[in-house]
Amino acid sequence: MGAAWNEPLADGLDRAAERALLGLERVDEGQATFTLTQPIARFDGKLFGGTAIAVAIALAEAETGRPSVWSTVQFTSGDTTLGDRFDCTTEVLAEGQSASQVRVTARVGGREIFCALGATARPKRGRPADTFLRFPSVVPLEESPILDLPLPRRLREAGSTLRRTIELRSARPLGEPDPGAPRMLWTRVPGLAATPAVQAYLADLVPVSIAWASGRTGGGTSIDNTMRTGAASESEWVLVEMHPAQMGGGYGHGSVHLWTPDGQLLGTASQSAALILFD
Amino acid sequence: MGAAWNEPLADGLDRAAERALLGLERVDEGQATFTLTQPIARFDGKLFGGTAIAVAIALAEAETGRPSVWSTVQFTSGDTTLGDRFDCTTEVLAEGQSASQVRVTARVGGREIFCALGATARPKRGRPADTFLRFPSVVPLEESPILDLPLPRRLREAGSTLRRTIELRSARPLGEPDPGAPRMLWTRVPGLAATPAVQAYLADLVPVSIAWASGRTGGGTSIDNTMRTGAASESEWVLVEMHPAQMGGGYGHGSVHLWTPDGQLLGTASQSAALILFD
Repeated sequence: MGAAWNEPLADGLDRAAERALLGLERVDEGQATFTLTQPIARFDGKLFGGTAIAVAIALAEAETGRPSVWSTVQFTSGDTTLGDRFDCTTEVLAEGQSASQVRVTARVGGREIFCALGATARPKRGRPADTFLRFPSVVPLEESPILDLPLPRRLREAGSTLRRTIELRSARPLGEPDPGAPRMLWTRVPGLAATPAVQAYLADLVPVSIAWASGRTGGGTSIDNTMRTGAASESEWVLVEMHPAQMGGGYGHGSVHLWTPDGQLLGTASQSAALILFD
Repeated sequence: MGAAWNEPLADGLDRAAERALLGLERVDEGQATFTLTQPIARFDGKLFGGTAIAVAIALAEAETGRPSVWSTVQFTSGDTTLGDRFDCTTEVLAEGQSASQVRVTARVGGREIFCALGATARPKRGRPADTFLRFPSVVPLEESPILDLPLPRRLREAGSTLRRTIELRSARPLGEPDPGAPRMLWTRVPGLAATPAVQAYLADLVPVSIAWASGRTGGGTSIDNTMRTGAASESEWVLVEMHPAQMGGGYGHGSVHLWTPDGQLLGTASQSAALILFD
């Protein structure tokens, strides 16, 4: 096991910018920190699920020198606030010829806040590549207006701070409106390539997709964030195609497909959440 | 936190039969064991991913007294064999009014084999329930023939032992064949209701769905198994609708939707895998 904070990964994309976004600093072998600041926090100043999984993926990649294949973050405590310093421990549990198994644990003042499991892997040469999902019909990015999230009044001001790190545009299907078609969003972190960590940061949209599908505003508190990356891309813009699955008893599940503007599938993300629905 | 091995859960379904299938025995508060036997192992005698996640869910439910919402299992070591005795530790990391956060770690002779994160929850009253996925058009169970898996010759004999615990039937779409339609299977564990653990046991089909979608036989070694349950059912039969997503560099990702025969969405499962493809 070797720390690879400054080595290029197999996908050739730089990770320095995403580490700067997250404020990640290496302390020692397997030890890193970041501080929760407003641009990477939720509207209410608590830890944003997308930040947690981006941190977990960035650390797993940095410690193994391999691009992320999959990561799941579990939120153990929601008791976080702006200014919290997170101490992150990255354990490489197993390391094979191509894949590594990793666990990342993040604590504030000794309290566990989240724990991530994940795998990173060097791609094997000569293996077939294919995509089995279909790129959706979508109005091109250039013709898509900047989006105002349908937030309740009391969250609107806080919502505007989201744009410091995530830009959203509406992404309508081409042609006649089809009420059964998946909702979509164009998303990006300005200036950052769609690495696995950035994909995961942008993918934390399942709770809002469930709210929309149920005809309500709101969202929820992530129980987990899960990201499966098949490809990384220099493209900044990511089309998020939403597939909410179900809700009941106050909980909901769903997934999203992430695409480049020219139709390459980057990965798929899924989540369960405790729902907070208005109206 | 209280162990609830013998208390009924909110969904009213009995867990004794699934514990018997898995051979789960309680040793102490938060401690349980099972032994890897052929009926719950892979063809080659190694740990079956569906068994691991079923164990993790069953233990999380038993220790918290709440039905499973979500669970993810990471496989740290593939070094398992028939007769291995698994020592399982279940930690309840957090327990709220309705949800519990749980970690299950399984070891053989002190070596960690898998680790699961997950949440269980008592459903909140009066919350809206809805399903956002569409039940697929499918030939009814009664008209669907028993399935012979398209296994390579050397695995066919071992494959026949699978039917000791999992029955499969083909599940063709109604009407004209559509090459773009998702592949489906009717599945059940004879005699067992579709609890969250049984759903997860049946859902370990992403690797084979990727092989089929790529026009090859084979499957893969699970990197993880993830199960999100929205509902449990007395129904034995579960329709598994397969949504392989992508493959490349020797790895693949995908998900499945699980339905009762009368069209209720039970849950969704997803996986990443190291692929083993023949032809």
